[in-house]
Amino acid sequence: MDLATLIGVVLGSVLLMGAILLGDAPGIFFNPPSVLIVFGGTLATAMIRFSMADVINSAKIAMNAFTMRGNNPQEVIAEIVNLAHVARKNGLIVLEQQPITDPFLKKAIMYCVDGHEADFIEEVLQKEVDLTITRHQVGQQVFNGMGTSAPAFGMIGTLVGLVQMLSVMDDPASIGPGMAVALLTTLYGAVLANFLFIPIADKLALRSQEEEQNRQLIIEGVLGILKGLNPRVMEEFLETFLPPKDRKNAMAGR
Amino acid sequence: MDLATLIGVVLGSVLLMGAILLGDAPGIFFNPPSVLIVFGGTLATAMIRFSMADVINSAKIAMNAFTMRGNNPQEVIAEIVNLAHVARKNGLIVLEQQPITDPFLKKAIMYCVDGHEADFIEEVLQKEVDLTITRHQVGQQVFNGMGTSAPAFGMIGTLVGLVQMLSVMDDPASIGPGMAVALLTTLYGAVLANFLFIPIADKLALRSQEEEQNRQLIIEGVLGILKGLNPRVMEEFLETFLPPKDRKNAMAGR
Amino acid sequence: MDLATLIGVVLGSVLLMGAILLGDAPGIFFNPPSVLIVFGGTLATAMIRFSMADVINSAKIAMNAFTMRGNNPQEVIAEIVNLAHVARKNGLIVLEQQPITDPFLKKAIMYCVDGHEADFIEEVLQKEVDLTITRHQVGQQVFNGMGTSAPAFGMIGTLVGLVQMLSVMDDPASIGPGMAVALLTTLYGAVLANFLFIPIADKLALRSQEEEQNRQLIIEGVLGILKGLNPRVMEEFLETFLPPKDRKNAMAGR
Amino acid sequence: MDLATLIGVVLGSVLLMGAILLGDAPGIFFNPPSVLIVFGGTLATAMIRFSMADVINSAKIAMNAFTMRGNNPQEVIAEIVNLAHVARKNGLIVLEQQPITDPFLKKAIMYCVDGHEADFIEEVLQKEVDLTITRHQVGQQVFNGMGTSAPAFGMIGTLVGLVQMLSVMDDPASIGPGMAVALLTTLYGAVLANFLFIPIADKLALRSQEEEQNRQLIIEGVLGILKGLNPRVMEEFLETFLPPKDRKNAMAGR
Amino acid sequence: MDLATLIGVVLGSVLLMGAILLGDAPGIFFNPPSVLIVFGGTLATAMIRFSMADVINSAKIAMNAFTMRGNNPQEVIAEIVNLAHVARKNGLIVLEQQPITDPFLKKAIMYCVDGHEADFIEEVLQKEVDLTITRHQVGQQVFNGMGTSAPAFGMIGTLVGLVQMLSVMDDPASIGPGMAVALLTTLYGAVLANFLFIPIADKLALRSQEEEQNRQLIIEGVLGILKGLNPRVMEEFLETFLPPKDRKNAMAGR
Repeated sequence: MDLATLIGVVLGSVLLMGAILLGDAPGIFFNPPSVLIVFGGTLATAMIRFSMADVINSAKIAMNAFTMRGNNPQEVIAEIVNLAHVARKNGLIVLEQQPITDPFLKKAIMYCVDGHEADFIEEVLQKEVDLTITRHQVGQQVFNGMGTSAPAFGMIGTLVGLVQMLSVMDDPASIGPGMAVALLTTLYGAVLANFLFIPIADKLALRSQEEEQNRQLIIEGVLGILKGLNPRVMEEFLETFLPPKDRKNAMAGR
Repeated sequence: MDLATLIGVVLGSVLLMGAILLGDAPGIFFNPPSVLIVFGGTLATAMIRFSMADVINSAKIAMNAFTMRGNNPQEVIAEIVNLAHVARKNGLIVLEQQPITDPFLKKAIMYCVDGHEADFIEEVLQKEVDLTITRHQVGQQVFNGMGTSAPAFGMIGTLVGLVQMLSVMDDPASIGPGMAVALLTTLYGAVLANFLFIPIADKLALRSQEEEQNRQLIIEGVLGILKGLNPRVMEEFLETFLPPKDRKNAMAGR
Repeated sequence: MDLATLIGVVLGSVLLMGAILLGDAPGIFFNPPSVLIVFGGTLATAMIRFSMADVINSAKIAMNAFTMRGNNPQEVIAEIVNLAHVARKNGLIVLEQQPITDPFLKKAIMYCVDGHEADFIEEVLQKEVDLTITRHQVGQQVFNGMGTSAPAFGMIGTLVGLVQMLSVMDDPASIGPGMAVALLTTLYGAVLANFLFIPIADKLALRSQEEEQNRQLIIEGVLGILKGLNPRVMEEFLETFLPPKDRKNAMAGR
Repeated sequence: MDLATLIGVVLGSVLLMGAILLGDAPGIFFNPPSVLIVFGGTLATAMIRFSMADVINSAKIAMNAFTMRGNNPQEVIAEIVNLAHVARKNGLIVLEQQPITDPFLKKAIMYCVDGHEADFIEEVLQKEVDLTITRHQVGQQVFNGMGTSAPAFGMIGTLVGLVQMLSVMDDPASIGPGMAVALLTTLYGAVLANFLFIPIADKLALRSQEEEQNRQLIIEGVLGILKGLNPRVMEEFLETFLPPKDRKNAMAGR
Repeated sequence: MDLATLIGVVLGSVLLMGAILLGDAPGIFFNPPSVLIVFGGTLATAMIRFSMADVINSAKIAMNAFTMRGNNPQEVIAEIVNLAHVARKNGLIVLEQQPITDPFLKKAIMYCVDGHEADFIEEVLQKEVDLTITRHQVGQQVFNGMGTSAPAFGMIGTLVGLVQMLSVMDDPASIGPGMAVALLTTLYGAVLANFLFIPIADKLALRSQEEEQNRQLIIEGVLGILKGLNPRVMEEFLETFLPPKDRKNAMAGR
């Protein structure tokens, strides 16, 4: 559960709702046709930009920004160092019976047990990481794309409203409310893009980067096991992946 | 057939048309001179930017965004693994008689049958992929270029209209409609760029990226056949190109 | 002769002139002081940004966007394959007497005839290509720089006009025309940048990219001749530089 | 202590406060609800974008922009050259007892004393530097992210204010003050982003880059010690990291 | 002396001053408080962004944009080719007594005379070039940073002025002049950024790039001398650094 995302969404919504409900004329802010233009236009554009599957997936992916928890590289390091100890004492084959929680680590260990060469294992695992990152990027692109479309359709809606209002500008008293409604789509577009779509894309990118680093760590560790590296040396090396304050080896860092 | 593109265009058009037709003064939105400035200016600029052939091609390329279907890497993997089995049993020469659906795979296999060295084959195929991507990029650039020009000419049209309106500002009643017309080119430019040109460029880029990945997969596969790799190992390796849920080998992934 | 550039400039100019001449008050659009601020400011800034020689050259370079013709890679491939046949039969020395139209190809062949090593030849030719591209980029940068400056000076001119108009705002009737004149510099800047400077920079970049690819093709071909590659194999390899429809070898493609 | 940051913040604040307090109606500039929308919205968005820990850390990191002092590469070079002298005379083991002030240098020397191979030491130290830079970048991203969000929420606040004002536009006398308040959030957003968030992100990036260069210098120096390089040659080499005027070896440079 | 920069600054200033002095109310354009906000805010932000030394240096660096002369690669090539002739006849040691004008070339030759290995010399010189470029970039960043801050503080000043004006909008006659003054800071910011800061940053970047290429040329030349390359071959190779029209060897080019 990514609490930060949830708290951020709730806090921002409360602030905006408060500013609207405590101000003049709160009713004017809820205008179904304006919602339709901005939401519908953004969705339609996403379908032109991406494939059907990507757009449908995006709802599920957005959930990831709320539910994904960060990885815990310390646990992974401990697990790898433990496997290194086992492998040193009893050989690689024994690793097959070890319980391994991280699925990517399990896969990597299986390649070792199967007796593939280190070069092949590194190539397959690295390709797996690269292609996973590429797949994650499509999700981020969908949200970034909607973050670009929403303000654009906000502006398009406002222009349509302005043209309509200006072309029948006979009653000066109607200018204000007409203009207020015209500005609503710009407001919707700005809120959707800056408060939801782009921040969610950024969170997805952050999580993807964390995961990539975690898997890089696993690749380094498994290659070390294959080389029969001293577990203590390996631990020291893998701990460079941690911020200094999280390291067991107190020496050095910043 | 890329249904997503078609549905997106129809959905967005219905929304915009609805907002215009259900609102005040729908007639004012259709203004031939404004259409001429935005469309004509965008087209003229595209011709300065690109070659004649590229601009003429762009209409055909735009169709690709509607008609291209995504590649199916699963079928390609199955085909390659099958060829690997055949090559292992009966030698490379027999591959010539195998039916092969993907033209790039066919070309790659022909190089193998002709007895070229692996290095040469990899170099030619990789260059082919790189140059195909470069050619695709010209198509994307034409649309991105029009996506930049359309709002610019929208603004130019609005500025021309504003200068004309302001210089003869004697009748206050005419200000509204004059300004409405001046804003039309900005509206046209925003719709063309954000709803058509840029999303189509993005879809073309997405398809090009998919195709590149598919061909990369083919290159890896053919090199594996040349090396006489175990078909089962090769399948496992090629499946890293698939999202985990599409893999036959259930082990690992995410 | 690059017809596309010429047609683009004429078409765009006719459209803009038409919109101005057929509208109200065409006379107001031609305002020498406004021309002076936008043109002069853009020129002055270009001189701060670049060297005197680069700015003076830019007029000549702009002509290139109109006069440069695209390269014809098919002819170059035919010429190289022909040279490869000659070299195979009669040795490299004979190539000296062959008529060669492309000057870069001629230079490359001369290096071969002089008996330099393949590594040296590749290094010199590659450096030549890289440095030519770098020199071309200065020309593109001048135009892109003017494409950035023109709208900026358009805005500066408008701000000067607005401050002047607002500071003496006693006669309401004069507001309209005053504002119209103030907006003129913004219009000039937008037209210069979006219709001329930036598209010309893009065309120069496109031509430069085509030339780079053509020279890359020549380098590959000459290295093939040095290695004594089979001319038929070489032709097949060089044709990857062509779009599939232009290839003699019907096999494969896209 | 980074005096420049402090002086910059004080100078800018005095200027802004002066312009406000010496002008008309200074009281109107302090509007708690507007503060809440911009600050709160920016904070909420930062929580969606980043992890909770990153956002909380950002306050501490901001302090770094005030307190971090620049590194002193001259001292580090002197220290390394001294260690090189010691190692040449008495062997690597003796380095263990040398007092070393820089913790990263100490760590690197410890690896030498432990008898690891040069390749391993270089790999671990380089990875440490790369991952430290990656961690620093998260801090910079938080501030850059808030530098993007603040103006966006400024605009959102202004749009909300404008819609409210326009929808009840019955008393012309209230337009001015209403609009003034609506513009306040835009002002807050612009000040926060351009005067605080983005410049602090830039200072953090500058310090991070300095630190990276300093550590690169240490890696080069320690590898030189391992190779048993002549200390005088090493000093000359390491001094390329200094601007020419700070070098002891007068020869050359600019 | 970089005449282009000087002429550009004078020409642009004359144009702007002319437009102001020949127009209405020239006096209104000189407003000390507005100058203070834009200049002071930009300076204060530069101090937050960079180190004190960098900001103070920037005045000296700005002078470089006026005084630096372009390098003359032809002279450098002639000098290197001459040194190559001497070294071939009398050995490397004799080079010590040769008069050498370029300080970087002198340094490089000294390394040769000192008997260092080619690999070491290349590494030191390349590092020197890379780090010099990095130091130059800080100067460019200061000006680009001020080019970003100036318009931002221009907008901030205008927003402050607008809020003040709108909050006391009782006398309609005062709106015009009030707005004129408010717009002044935007004008100042736009002129400073687009006419001075950003173009100067660009000129510094251009000069830095020229210098880098010149030093790259020297590195290639000195490595050639070490290898004992034929001076005529070396000249031909080094001339690829020149535009074709400046080459002595008429052959080829474009």
